Amino acid sequence: MLRTHTCGELSEKDIGKKAVLCGWVHSRRDHGKLIFIDIRDREGLTQVVFHPKVNAEAHKQAGELRSEYVVRVSGTVGKRPEGTINNNIPTGVIEIAAEDLIILNPSETPPFEINDEGGVQEEVRLKYRYLDLRRPSLQKNFRLRSRLYSAMRNYMNSQGFIEFETPILTKSTPEGARDFLVPSRLAQGEFYALPQSPQLFKQILMVSGFEKYYQIAKCFRDEDLRADRQPEFTQLDVEMSFIDEEDIFKLTEGLMKHIVKETLGIDIPTPFKRMSYDEAMKNYNSDKPDIRKDKAKEPLSFLWVVDFPLFRYNDEEKRWDMEHHPFTSPRPNSLEEFKKPLDQIRANAYDLVINGSEIASGSIRIHDSRMQEKIFELIGIKSEEAKERFGFLLEAFRFGAPPHGGIAFGIDRLMAIFTNSESIRDVIAFPKTQKGICPMTDAPSPVAEKQLRELGIKLNKR
Amino acid sequence: MLRTHTCGELSEKDIGKKAVLCGWVHSRRDHGKLIFIDIRDREGLTQVVFHPKVNAEAHKQAGELRSEYVVRVSGTVGKRPEGTINNNIPTGVIEIAAEDLIILNPSETPPFEINDEGGVQEEVRLKYRYLDLRRPSLQKNFRLRSRLYSAMRNYMNSQGFIEFETPILTKSTPEGARDFLVPSRLAQGEFYALPQSPQLFKQILMVSGFEKYYQIAKCFRDEDLRADRQPEFTQLDVEMSFIDEEDIFKLTEGLMKHIVKETLGIDIPTPFKRMSYDEAMKNYNSDKPDIRKDKAKEPLSFLWVVDFPLFRYNDEEKRWDMEHHPFTSPRPNSLEEFKKPLDQIRANAYDLVINGSEIASGSIRIHDSRMQEKIFELIGIKSEEAKERFGFLLEAFRFGAPPHGGIAFGIDRLMAIFTNSESIRDVIAFPKTQKGICPMTDAPSPVAEKQLRELGIKLNKR
Repeated sequence: MLRTHTCGELSEKDIGKKAVLCGWVHSRRDHGKLIFIDIRDREGLTQVVFHPKVNAEAHKQAGELRSEYVVRVSGTVGKRPEGTINNNIPTGVIEIAAEDLIILNPSETPPFEINDEGGVQEEVRLKYRYLDLRRPSLQKNFRLRSRLYSAMRNYMNSQGFIEFETPILTKSTPEGARDFLVPSRLAQGEFYALPQSPQLFKQILMVSGFEKYYQIAKCFRDEDLRADRQPEFTQLDVEMSFIDEEDIFKLTEGLMKHIVKETLGIDIPTPFKRMSYDEAMKNYNSDKPDIRKDKAKEPLSFLWVVDFPLFRYNDEEKRWDMEHHPFTSPRPNSLEEFKKPLDQIRANAYDLVINGSEIASGSIRIHDSRMQEKIFELIGIKSEEAKERFGFLLEAFRFGAPPHGGIAFGIDRLMAIFTNSESIRDVIAFPKTQKGICPMTDAPSPVAEKQLRELGIKLNKR
Repeated sequence: MLRTHTCGELSEKDIGKKAVLCGWVHSRRDHGKLIFIDIRDREGLTQVVFHPKVNAEAHKQAGELRSEYVVRVSGTVGKRPEGTINNNIPTGVIEIAAEDLIILNPSETPPFEINDEGGVQEEVRLKYRYLDLRRPSLQKNFRLRSRLYSAMRNYMNSQGFIEFETPILTKSTPEGARDFLVPSRLAQGEFYALPQSPQLFKQILMVSGFEKYYQIAKCFRDEDLRADRQPEFTQLDVEMSFIDEEDIFKLTEGLMKHIVKETLGIDIPTPFKRMSYDEAMKNYNSDKPDIRKDKAKEPLSFLWVVDFPLFRYNDEEKRWDMEHHPFTSPRPNSLEEFKKPLDQIRANAYDLVINGSEIASGSIRIHDSRMQEKIFELIGIKSEEAKERFGFLLEAFRFGAPPHGGIAFGIDRLMAIFTNSESIRDVIAFPKTQKGICPMTDAPSPVAEKQLRELGIKLNKR
């Protein structure tokens, strides 16, 4: 360790002790004889005073310090003179009389002031993300995000869930959004796809008998980016066997109660209110209504939206599509349901809405192959096509699939709500712009001809 | 919940209770009048007996049951008759007298017996991975893997580390291994790369002032696959600021002690033995020696290999390369070191070796830009090239980079050692073959012409 203490921990009880601190020069006040600097590390700020009589060389060096220099200071903890005490910070009663100074690294003048006052273009902030991330609000956001992961996992583990990793290099299944593709070098002309979600794998793990799966998973969709979309985003992904939707509600409510308490210190009441899709559409003209009466005063309001339609008529294609994905079961979960007109069949699907944002979505899946075939028939997927697109899952279902269902939570959106952030880019460490660009690394970028040749691909001339 | 109990929890104290179990038919013995089945779920096995007098219909249905059918059985817990008690399993004293049976899903005859006796070709096991994963040894491996994640994260959190996610879609930096590329649709002709490791991002996070970073991270390398390599693999990735190598050793030893205790229940002694690279090469002719004296009796032996050379002469290219990556600092960490002949300069780098396997590797990084320039000069990287390859990190270093260092642990290899697995494929849920193929999903696979057109690429004619 290059230090004895952090910049947030020294207080009145340490007066008289020797201390070595490391950190960034946060501010400097040169009073000629005395030079004051505030050193900053992730835990706080500590005032250091350089006196020429204590160490003339250090005092001289301190005169050269500029903002964001990285320094190591040794000295003795003393009480600040009356009238200079700062009660706004925990270290505000003490200061360090510097006996030694090492400049660990100088810094050029940053392209913008490192504070939360705004006014800096986002493109510039993202280019210098390493400086942007020094801002107090972003430091706070990412420490909270880490606590959120931990609270989520602790809760899932306490409920007997098994954490899995599913592959990032997987098969393209053109469904819903567009896939990102990865050309294979060993099998030229063939491609991996990045997963839009671990949906098929988590259902496979139910067929494998693990019963309770979870993963904090990266998901990828190559869509045109709207305001609050990212090409890669993070979900808490969950699946359970031998359960019904009430088990998912109970698990989710316990999870939310736990994570809100652990991250924000707030107690939230459970169970959550439930509203049917029809009621939401009728009363709020939205399938994710914000039911807070006084939005300013109510920090978090949770709502289940249930009883979604199973099918949705696609006017363009003149056919029925699934409202969710094609593995969603009807409610009640019986073949009898299909005797009804299609627009009257309800889905065993549910969304969790917080303050008008859809935060989680899930369903009880079909595990009966006759019902699955019926669904494919109704939405016009021929058996050849079904085999091509979902073959391995349908095959797996032939060998004893348990009844199962699940849910997935959007962690980026949840974090944006928990931190009151305007954009999910404030809760993602290295986000992309709306054009899918990372201004810091310059990704995506041209690659060498040799790399393409090895992959057996070439660029289209434009 | 479709059940009241799991198949592993009923015992003598439950005799007389009603119970509902769900699970897979593990085995069936038809004694004509009485039919016995063992139901299996992830928690264990429970014997169920069908008697025609209790429920003639259920008894008849039970006659149709076959291996791996999924069932729901209701009945009363009773004591097994003397002489049929099985003391090898926790539920071996009881059985359920079935009053009701629901076949939740039938199963075709599996292509292989679901047990650990071996003899099934790996390609077949991977094709039917959902059945393979039902084997007791694999069930055990993945529950252990989940416990390992949890133990690792709990330890890192307890030491004040912040968990981050770094991007999967990032910039190609042709260094070391070959990158997997992802064509960009929004910027045609440009490519993202999947990260070979989060190395540059974790150093950026140190520049951002987070001080203690960790992530259980997916890493990607498009190499020709050798016996125990996978195109995607998992690391516990760690970086710290204001520290020296002793802090990394101490953290690692605490981490290993904790995870071995939590997963295997074994106490391991710390600190670990250290051996210089020269000594390892001289006495074992290996930079990852297995120092166990009696390999059969000693389950785990930990060794630090230290004092690696900083440079390695590349005979083919007639130049000096880095032994580790170009951000590794010399030891001692001073510009003075470069007055020595290059082959005598040691690196501030360290490997952790368990039973002769390299499990972790790390170094104290360069944070001084003059030293970084000196290194680039010595290994023949021109400043233009350095800018192209590592530009954003070098740029970040201009704005106050703290001294920092880190380490990364190979979780797949660690799991293989902890579970005594011959192959890392037994500890990865959905691994690829040596040809980079997933026999279950058939990835990689051809994609539609339209997908390529949208990406602005085409296949080379062969």
